Amino acid sequence: MPSYKAPVEDVLFILNDVLGFQRQSNLKGFADASPDVVEAVLTEGAKLAEEVLAPLNAVGDREGCTRQADGSVTTPKGYRAGYDAYAKGGWMGLSVPEEFGGQGLPHTLNTAIQEFASGANLALSMYPGLTQGAMAALLVHGSDEQKATYLPKMVEGAWTGTMNLTEPHCGTDLGLLKTKAVPNGDGSYSLTGTKIFISAGEHDLSENIVHLVIARIEGAPAGTKGISLFVVPKFLVNPDGSLGARNGVSCGSIEHKMGIHGNSTCVMNYDGATGWLVGQENRGLNAMFVMMNEARLAVGVQGLGQSEVAYQNAVAYAKDRLQGRALTGAKAPDKAADPIIVHPDVRRTLMGIRAFNEAARALMLWTALQADIGHRSEDAAERQRAEDHMGLMTPVVKAVLTDKGFANAVEAQQMFGGHGYIEEWGMSQFVRDARIAMIYEGANGIQAMDLIGRKLPKDGGRAMMGFLAEVQTFVKDHGEDEGLKPFVGPLQAGLNDLQGATMWFMQNAFSKPDNAGAGATDYLHLLGLVALGYMWARIAKAALASQAEAASDRMADKLVVGRFFMERMLPETALRLVRIKAGSETTMALAAEAF
Amino acid sequence: MPSYKAPVEDVLFILNDVLGFQRQSNLKGFADASPDVVEAVLTEGAKLAEEVLAPLNAVGDREGCTRQADGSVTTPKGYRAGYDAYAKGGWMGLSVPEEFGGQGLPHTLNTAIQEFASGANLALSMYPGLTQGAMAALLVHGSDEQKATYLPKMVEGAWTGTMNLTEPHCGTDLGLLKTKAVPNGDGSYSLTGTKIFISAGEHDLSENIVHLVIARIEGAPAGTKGISLFVVPKFLVNPDGSLGARNGVSCGSIEHKMGIHGNSTCVMNYDGATGWLVGQENRGLNAMFVMMNEARLAVGVQGLGQSEVAYQNAVAYAKDRLQGRALTGAKAPDKAADPIIVHPDVRRTLMGIRAFNEAARALMLWTALQADIGHRSEDAAERQRAEDHMGLMTPVVKAVLTDKGFANAVEAQQMFGGHGYIEEWGMSQFVRDARIAMIYEGANGIQAMDLIGRKLPKDGGRAMMGFLAEVQTFVKDHGEDEGLKPFVGPLQAGLNDLQGATMWFMQNAFSKPDNAGAGATDYLHLLGLVALGYMWARIAKAALASQAEAASDRMADKLVVGRFFMERMLPETALRLVRIKAGSETTMALAAEAF
Repeated sequence: MPSYKAPVEDVLFILNDVLGFQRQSNLKGFADASPDVVEAVLTEGAKLAEEVLAPLNAVGDREGCTRQADGSVTTPKGYRAGYDAYAKGGWMGLSVPEEFGGQGLPHTLNTAIQEFASGANLALSMYPGLTQGAMAALLVHGSDEQKATYLPKMVEGAWTGTMNLTEPHCGTDLGLLKTKAVPNGDGSYSLTGTKIFISAGEHDLSENIVHLVIARIEGAPAGTKGISLFVVPKFLVNPDGSLGARNGVSCGSIEHKMGIHGNSTCVMNYDGATGWLVGQENRGLNAMFVMMNEARLAVGVQGLGQSEVAYQNAVAYAKDRLQGRALTGAKAPDKAADPIIVHPDVRRTLMGIRAFNEAARALMLWTALQADIGHRSEDAAERQRAEDHMGLMTPVVKAVLTDKGFANAVEAQQMFGGHGYIEEWGMSQFVRDARIAMIYEGANGIQAMDLIGRKLPKDGGRAMMGFLAEVQTFVKDHGEDEGLKPFVGPLQAGLNDLQGATMWFMQNAFSKPDNAGAGATDYLHLLGLVALGYMWARIAKAALASQAEAASDRMADKLVVGRFFMERMLPETALRLVRIKAGSETTMALAAEAF
Repeated sequence: MPSYKAPVEDVLFILNDVLGFQRQSNLKGFADASPDVVEAVLTEGAKLAEEVLAPLNAVGDREGCTRQADGSVTTPKGYRAGYDAYAKGGWMGLSVPEEFGGQGLPHTLNTAIQEFASGANLALSMYPGLTQGAMAALLVHGSDEQKATYLPKMVEGAWTGTMNLTEPHCGTDLGLLKTKAVPNGDGSYSLTGTKIFISAGEHDLSENIVHLVIARIEGAPAGTKGISLFVVPKFLVNPDGSLGARNGVSCGSIEHKMGIHGNSTCVMNYDGATGWLVGQENRGLNAMFVMMNEARLAVGVQGLGQSEVAYQNAVAYAKDRLQGRALTGAKAPDKAADPIIVHPDVRRTLMGIRAFNEAARALMLWTALQADIGHRSEDAAERQRAEDHMGLMTPVVKAVLTDKGFANAVEAQQMFGGHGYIEEWGMSQFVRDARIAMIYEGANGIQAMDLIGRKLPKDGGRAMMGFLAEVQTFVKDHGEDEGLKPFVGPLQAGLNDLQGATMWFMQNAFSKPDNAGAGATDYLHLLGLVALGYMWARIAKAALASQAEAASDRMADKLVVGRFFMERMLPETALRLVRIKAGSETTMALAAEAF
């Protein structure tokens, strides 16, 4: 049976030593997040993940969800208790303002908890995860009445949330959507249409389900400019807050998926369901984007979570499984064979996953911290810098952490040989579960297009120039630092490749947009590599500072893992640049029929 | 529902135009393989794959195999008819000598058929596939009596075969095996032990199952030098060839796997089962290696098969699915959106898979042809060259074609967005099925160690020097050829990286073997990239010659696809070289407890 241990110590190191989390204590909510509180929150969150959520992971995969004849959906055995523990622990509202029952703590902490929860049990963690996404949209765009009606119940976990975007004929291209909203004359609307791939659309974990639904109001303009956002509760809510009549929304079927079996993925039918507009008419996509940014970061976090849990179990197996002898002579001569962790190819695999995970965790927390600054700072310039960072890094965190998270789960599975392919060992589930994160909340190719088409050119390229300048400054400031030399040199090389690619797009993509499209995914990964390399350089700086105070094996090991990244992983930037510069000619030359 | 079309035209082009298959007509069996016969065989094989095997793929995944209370195993609905069609068509013995009822045709043709069969239905194709592997071992190492007893029935398909190597505590490290063989005094042995992961170990497709089993004869030396090979039929065979008593071998359980559900993966219990020695006492591993080489090539072919079928279905979806508009303006203005094949990032994905598949197919057929030459040539020098090639390329074909085959299935699945994650669309099955090929017949890390530790240094590096010289000669001979310039230049660069890596190992790995181990996987992929690049150069040469005779879109397209490979995929050699040269220091530095 696989197990999970939340990386509390690593999160604390990143927050305290690398990111200077406590320096933000002037931000709203941060004053409450003293070092003691942070450590207590993480420790409690770890307990929940390790002791409650992780033991339900395999059973969720085996049993899956069942749609009953009456349209209700039963979740796997134990899920209700697991969900209740999550809700009762106050985790749902960790960073929701106190006026709605939340704890108002930084979103950065919530992000760390999301990693723990999704690493322990991705399918189960999605029920609260979607609720948090729906709350985020209501917080920003909901009316005071909507906030008062829905948020406290959602914070409590009594009600959960969903996001309803996709329809059978439209996923990425939301302009094609057909779900209709007809005004009822009393301020409410009547919604009719079919939504698919609705995670947590129907289940037995909560009393009510708050659906956020995009639809087209009768007579609205075609395309994305005619989309509005609605809140459609499963049960209508009486003025006193109690539950009223069942609304005209139901689960038509659930999907049989490759993974995340414990999450119910529903076809939702809206048959004249009563809904209320959230935010402005025809501005639904804007409102949805708030939710999507948060959700995209959370999905990136899921990729890291699966990478981490797969790594931990591969390590345990590699220490335990005896097979062959070390190339340099027997390491366990008293046993029939050495544990496979002595083999360089096994080490290479484990080091590669770990070198990614630790930098990805730093990137995730750094980006979450920018989200907090963007939302909570009183300094407009600081807010702008933080929002620039968030916008630029959202597609990177989403796509890079899920692409690599999945690839790492596959690598970890490989350590097990034939046992990795057998379901009872649990590695297959990590692979199958991790696979979805590359797809939902905008498939990773869409993230690349978002980066190249929207985030890069925005405000004259201000966000990217800010990032390049920040990394360049770090390199300049630390170029003479002996201990950082193994980091700063490779980082400069990666930065040069990123600058070269950015320049190439400026010169070649405006006139020929296919050049941007053909290089988009490579550019996203190139930026991701440099961002991760920058994280390693900052981690190394912190580790060296810590070593100067008191030597520790843990910090010495971090420096080795970081050098592994700089030597073997960061140089991929050069390959990405070559591909980008190849342009789009051969990519686009064939007629469609020639495929 | 996914579909499959066997790439007959491409195989014919590679055989006839690229590899000069007909020039080998002096080899035994090749005279019978006239162009007409080759085309007829491929066309009939394609029909079997497309019309019989492919329609059974999804049902096999859904139903899986069931072990009944009496230890028998029931295969999915329709499998028996599918298997019978395979057997009755004479496919089992396509390249088995005529004296045993086979057709004695080149193994090269058999390899092409293996691609078709495994692309159409990997799980079903394994039953005949393992039978062919078992026949190969009996052909080389079996006594005349054993050959006469087993081969004709196996060629007919009335009996199937298996390979029994793995035990619970030993997969890679066969020296640890415990299964015991005690002489019965009448020339037979009594085998006792447990084997796991035995594909096709028990099923309802054939009258008898011929198990090839490695075991340790009582008193044999420890380790790999004390392993012998035995043939253990499920039913003992009477002197007249009819079936006698049930032997003491049974299926204890079947595994619940990530994929290939239609193949029964068995725990086999040997309880004093009667077996007969195949080949010499204590030389079982040598005998097994014959089987393993064939089997490893066949597994590489499976990787290509899954890559091809996943590609075909992704193409169909990309032409059909309407979403968004081309960056260069609407391509289907009469429709609500353009088909997604207009998007550069979709093209990039499809081109990448195709550029791999076509070169991998050439590499597979080239290697199979060398196997034929190695087995059938009367010229000793020619045989040696062919065997050198086979030995060197076996781990490359196995590991590169399965690593990339799986990665390509994942990429193809990605094209489908959310639908790719839903089982009914079939893309998940391709991914789950393709995953096993990276693991069985020696996990891919083991292939890398085989390459670096055994194949590379063998005979003073003769095989590798032969390969480097062949590619270098091609580059020299065609350096001035205008049409080949986009191929020859990048090929030379890749070759330089391969030479650099080989040199680096010579200088750094003998004294410090961990340097070889830490770079093994990168070296394997580096060699694979150069081999694929060389295949593209040869394909381009053939395409240009064909174009000179009569211009065709198909050949023009091939040149574009090949350039895509040279521009975007082959340059990965530089990254592989960087990783190799990083050595093993950071890889091996951490204490095992630090993981």
